[in-house]
Amino acid sequence: MTDIAMIEAARARLDGHARVTPLLSSPFLDDIAGRRVLVKAECLQHTGSFKFRGAWSAISALSPEDRARGVIAFSSGNHAQGVALAARMHGIPSVIIMPADAPALKIANTRAYGAEVVLYDRVKESRDEIGARLSKERNLTLIKPFDEPLVIAGQGTSGLEIAEQAQALGIDKADVLVPVSGGGLLSGIALALEAKAPGFVTYPCEPENFDDMTRSLVSGKIERNASLSGSLCDAILAPQPGDITFPIVKRLAGPGLVVTEEQALHAMALAFTRLKIVVEPGGAVALAAALFHGETLGETVIAVCSGGNVDGEVFRMALEKFPD
Amino acid sequence: MTDIAMIEAARARLDGHARVTPLLSSPFLDDIAGRRVLVKAECLQHTGSFKFRGAWSAISALSPEDRARGVIAFSSGNHAQGVALAARMHGIPSVIIMPADAPALKIANTRAYGAEVVLYDRVKESRDEIGARLSKERNLTLIKPFDEPLVIAGQGTSGLEIAEQAQALGIDKADVLVPVSGGGLLSGIALALEAKAPGFVTYPCEPENFDDMTRSLVSGKIERNASLSGSLCDAILAPQPGDITFPIVKRLAGPGLVVTEEQALHAMALAFTRLKIVVEPGGAVALAAALFHGETLGETVIAVCSGGNVDGEVFRMALEKFPD
Repeated sequence: MTDIAMIEAARARLDGHARVTPLLSSPFLDDIAGRRVLVKAECLQHTGSFKFRGAWSAISALSPEDRARGVIAFSSGNHAQGVALAARMHGIPSVIIMPADAPALKIANTRAYGAEVVLYDRVKESRDEIGARLSKERNLTLIKPFDEPLVIAGQGTSGLEIAEQAQALGIDKADVLVPVSGGGLLSGIALALEAKAPGFVTYPCEPENFDDMTRSLVSGKIERNASLSGSLCDAILAPQPGDITFPIVKRLAGPGLVVTEEQALHAMALAFTRLKIVVEPGGAVALAAALFHGETLGETVIAVCSGGNVDGEVFRMALEKFPD
Repeated sequence: MTDIAMIEAARARLDGHARVTPLLSSPFLDDIAGRRVLVKAECLQHTGSFKFRGAWSAISALSPEDRARGVIAFSSGNHAQGVALAARMHGIPSVIIMPADAPALKIANTRAYGAEVVLYDRVKESRDEIGARLSKERNLTLIKPFDEPLVIAGQGTSGLEIAEQAQALGIDKADVLVPVSGGGLLSGIALALEAKAPGFVTYPCEPENFDDMTRSLVSGKIERNASLSGSLCDAILAPQPGDITFPIVKRLAGPGLVVTEEQALHAMALAFTRLKIVVEPGGAVALAAALFHGETLGETVIAVCSGGNVDGEVFRMALEKFPD
């Protein structure tokens, strides 16, 4: 299981390869939220999302022999790009199995990062079967997107940075809002903060209709989403919390915060105007919660903007809908 | 005159108040440019541009008595916001004289940062007369936008960061491309690099038809722009190089690089897709030069993206024109 020692070991492996992402803020966002809002800009990580951290953590921890044979991953986008670039930087092959309806930009980028992309039909084909066959044929190591201790440890390095950057600003108490899909980023950050910033509490943030983690925390057991598509928040539509991540989230996180797609788009537009960063819809749900659902939160909120891989068309739509 | 000791003193005053902005990169941009491209993301500085550095440097160096009376500045936008926020953070009043045709976002932000904004007609009124009258009436200190050693020292702190961040990546030779208007940022960076990274050479970058610095370097004396408006690069349309900045630029910088407005918009779109940052047209001219005018440059180019205060409409237009 992931613990703080594993997260610190991951940070040592990531050092000089991953970016330390900045903690941004704007008095305009503070005014909207009615409290202090800090934004951890994980969209500025390599490949445009935090996923590079977990991918690098897992690949760098493989034995040289296993690593040389290559890795395989399933992903609709951000994990794909993280694994593809981390593999290329290690000089090893990668195969990424992606749904054919993933955003065009994410598929193109994954290929351009040097991965062999295998597309499948979400409805008619089983990605697990395709993956099992390719893994066996080529002896590839599977890099899971979230339910893997080394990946959780990699995402947790973002939590170490949050603790240090916030403490440098004199903050010893904060609510840390994290976009959630399978829960890898949230559980990594929660574990890091448990050890390094005990006054910080994490909260999962999700889009309406894809609030499996929120409902799981209410019922106390893993609940599924009714649907796996149909949201602009494509980055965070995992079917259910992970078997490894859920117990960590249950033990450490506060209740879930659910935002509408419109609020996520509004948060994207405000991040554009006020922070000068590009955030994708799924990556903006925590900022949306900080800005529009702050009633239950404390004086200082840290919102993780987890990714920025959004097509220009969707981004233009957000700016047009929310010009101010 | 500004020297490295003044720049280091400015950094000490800025410490904990200004942001250390990240040095970003993308393999996709390297491929386009045919060389390694690093981007100093000054758009992520407070108020969305490097101008906060110079404003803070100048205001923080005033005597407590002078400072308490307040400051005044002339600016079409980014300097205005930098001075307004730096003044507010010092708890002192500021008056900003802005042309009535400045971008709406910049005027609104300057007001929201707490400044008293006085608008004037560029054609019919003299901003100098308005400024002189207000300064005299209220005993305000003028914070010049570039031709002021303390302001140059503040902008130079960005150069100190560039030297350290690039050296941490093992880079000891680079061409550093800087958007130029009056030359404050360029001369500050050039002075910092002269002392801290002698293998780095700075180059001024300008939009077509507003290439006063480039022409001044060719002729050896200060040349003026024929026009002062009519470009999307509103942030960098000073009439001519400064009397203080020009000799520094002449001594330390390479020849100017001139880009078209279309190339600046294309660079903005690529910064959106590949770096997840928001850059305004004037702030993108150095990145445009790195991507599209690299023939004369070396293997490693560092492009400063100097600001991100762009209206949503212009940004959407850039994304629509350059979707890839």
